[in-house]
Amino acid sequence: MLGNFVYYNPTVLYFGRGALSALALELPNYGPKVQLIYGGGSIKKNGIYDQVTALLRETGKEIVEDPGVMPNPTTDKLYEGCRIARAHNVDLLLAVGGGSCCDYAKGVAVSAWCEEDPWEKYYVRREPPDNRVIPVGCVLTMVGTGSEMNSGSVITNPVTKRKVGPEFGEAAYPKFSILDPVFTYSLPKYQMTAGIFDIMSHILEQYLTDLDDCTSDYIMEGLMRSLIHSSRAAIRDPYDYQARSNLMWTATWALNTLVEKGKTTDWMVHKLGQSVSAFTDATHGMTLSAVSLPYYRRMLPHGLPRFKRFAEVVWEVRPEGKTDEAVALAGLAAMEAWMKELGVALHLRELGVTEEMIEGIADGATILKGGYKVLTRQEVSEILRESM
Amino acid sequence: MLGNFVYYNPTVLYFGRGALSALALELPNYGPKVQLIYGGGSIKKNGIYDQVTALLRETGKEIVEDPGVMPNPTTDKLYEGCRIARAHNVDLLLAVGGGSCCDYAKGVAVSAWCEEDPWEKYYVRREPPDNRVIPVGCVLTMVGTGSEMNSGSVITNPVTKRKVGPEFGEAAYPKFSILDPVFTYSLPKYQMTAGIFDIMSHILEQYLTDLDDCTSDYIMEGLMRSLIHSSRAAIRDPYDYQARSNLMWTATWALNTLVEKGKTTDWMVHKLGQSVSAFTDATHGMTLSAVSLPYYRRMLPHGLPRFKRFAEVVWEVRPEGKTDEAVALAGLAAMEAWMKELGVALHLRELGVTEEMIEGIADGATILKGGYKVLTRQEVSEILRESM
Repeated sequence: MLGNFVYYNPTVLYFGRGALSALALELPNYGPKVQLIYGGGSIKKNGIYDQVTALLRETGKEIVEDPGVMPNPTTDKLYEGCRIARAHNVDLLLAVGGGSCCDYAKGVAVSAWCEEDPWEKYYVRREPPDNRVIPVGCVLTMVGTGSEMNSGSVITNPVTKRKVGPEFGEAAYPKFSILDPVFTYSLPKYQMTAGIFDIMSHILEQYLTDLDDCTSDYIMEGLMRSLIHSSRAAIRDPYDYQARSNLMWTATWALNTLVEKGKTTDWMVHKLGQSVSAFTDATHGMTLSAVSLPYYRRMLPHGLPRFKRFAEVVWEVRPEGKTDEAVALAGLAAMEAWMKELGVALHLRELGVTEEMIEGIADGATILKGGYKVLTRQEVSEILRESM
Repeated sequence: MLGNFVYYNPTVLYFGRGALSALALELPNYGPKVQLIYGGGSIKKNGIYDQVTALLRETGKEIVEDPGVMPNPTTDKLYEGCRIARAHNVDLLLAVGGGSCCDYAKGVAVSAWCEEDPWEKYYVRREPPDNRVIPVGCVLTMVGTGSEMNSGSVITNPVTKRKVGPEFGEAAYPKFSILDPVFTYSLPKYQMTAGIFDIMSHILEQYLTDLDDCTSDYIMEGLMRSLIHSSRAAIRDPYDYQARSNLMWTATWALNTLVEKGKTTDWMVHKLGQSVSAFTDATHGMTLSAVSLPYYRRMLPHGLPRFKRFAEVVWEVRPEGKTDEAVALAGLAAMEAWMKELGVALHLRELGVTEEMIEGIADGATILKGGYKVLTRQEVSEILRESM
């Protein structure tokens, strides 16, 4: 059933080969000072940096450099970005990279002109932005987070070991995002497969949550079927444009608020994964893959009809002669086999988690109430141990 | 594969029970004069008219009445609407009704301040709007056309017997649309089932078109599975909120441009249906249902792999021991059985079409090139005769 909601998504998406040329259409809509946000410099190796800066110069922009965004952007980096934005009074934040760069750009967008500590106001207390918000544009070079078409921003505080991701709402949606699947060709396989599982996890957090009959669930089943098909093709051939374009588009629609409409959502796997990477700085998608199977095996008895539907529709498990539970378990087994094909992490050990860290990680994982069963603190530890 | 495209949809959707209250949020964004567009007066019987006018008065609006929008809005009605909008210099066009009222409102929006004949400029020559465009808001009381979240506007010229539906682009999207599934409860079964088949046809025009592997196709398969499931529930119980809300949401996403991204599209069934209603004024959805099976049976050999996929994924036809063609035909047979459950028109005769009309209808049906096979003029007549 679809309950009450408002749907509004103002981001303009330019999709396809050569889509970067759309920058020349968008840049004139903003003032002269552009804060250029990127990560460790891979965009300088693959030539994307040169293409972007050339377009910025051609449109008469002043480039304010803001490099060094790390995979899990920290509060210190956020503060640094805010200082840069204020010092130059920039007119546009242009993120060139993956979800971390987009999340960070949105964080700077709402935080730069915040009068108090933005971490406390916008990430801990999760207040709606009430100060000037700097416009954001994204040029995507990695696929997975969906950050290019939502208002979410995940930031990590290394001191308190808290990694949180508030949604800022309308003002913080990217004004435009440029999605060229070719830009994702050069991504290492580890990053690609982590992104692919991140997409799957985003969908599961919204799909394995209730037993209603809701159009959003059918859309998610379509997205998952496409994701599974295209992920296999992309592993066979990283230069398969069809597969890469489908992965890029699926990632966007998995987390741009459409599929959550009318749904309850879970996000417990993300809370566990976020707490893991606050302790290990592990790649986001891999923290999700490592905890997912133990978590969903625990949820299965509490949401059996949906797990059965998941097995039949998404994994094409035949129900004949099987109990409902056997069908549901066969679905999770099929997902595990697919995860092995991808080569994503199936154990927290692979990510540098030690036995000593587990209780700390458990303490750092907020227990949410949207899943089929609300976990106890004890069960959180058990799931983490089962994930080792 | 997803080729190059721009995705942008600026319409704000307020969905759910009591969503009409959102009018009080939206109306202050517009000037004092509101042209209230509706149809034959059913909204006066079911109380929606009173609710809307009360909210207009409470927000201090001056109501300019524009009733009498017919199921297939005519050029004469369009001209009348333009005269009303200009005479009162209205600030907002508020359509309360189904797709016809929304399409008409968008037509008046771009046409009212057009210096030349808007039919010639915007409907025949399909030029992009270059004059002042009046903002549009919609309160939906019927489900099917998707007009609440796109820029299309279908208008019929009874003199030339041409029924055309250009898309005006960004400026003509409704600024907001209010979708309360409860408002559709009172719809007669004939209108409800016509709307349901209209939704299916919108999807098929974009799904049965190519053989690419594209995420949009997987999304459409999800929408069709939801549509079929909810349509059966809504026929059993018209007051099933879950079914009615899913139908309403599916209709919106079937034709708000999302699922066409990366696709070739057909729309030949709509060209045939539109020509039929230009001659008979038959209900839009029924003109589509009457010609669909003969049309798709002709397309099947030219797009066999997709028709087979359609049968297996959407209609759950088991392929074992069947030829591909047998599987594909079983899919169309399953769709025909579903159409009989709905009780939609399967023959043009039911809609008042006579043998004498057929060549005229064929002449009026523009032959498009997006399908699996471009029809000859001779084949158009044959399909129409097979649809009798």
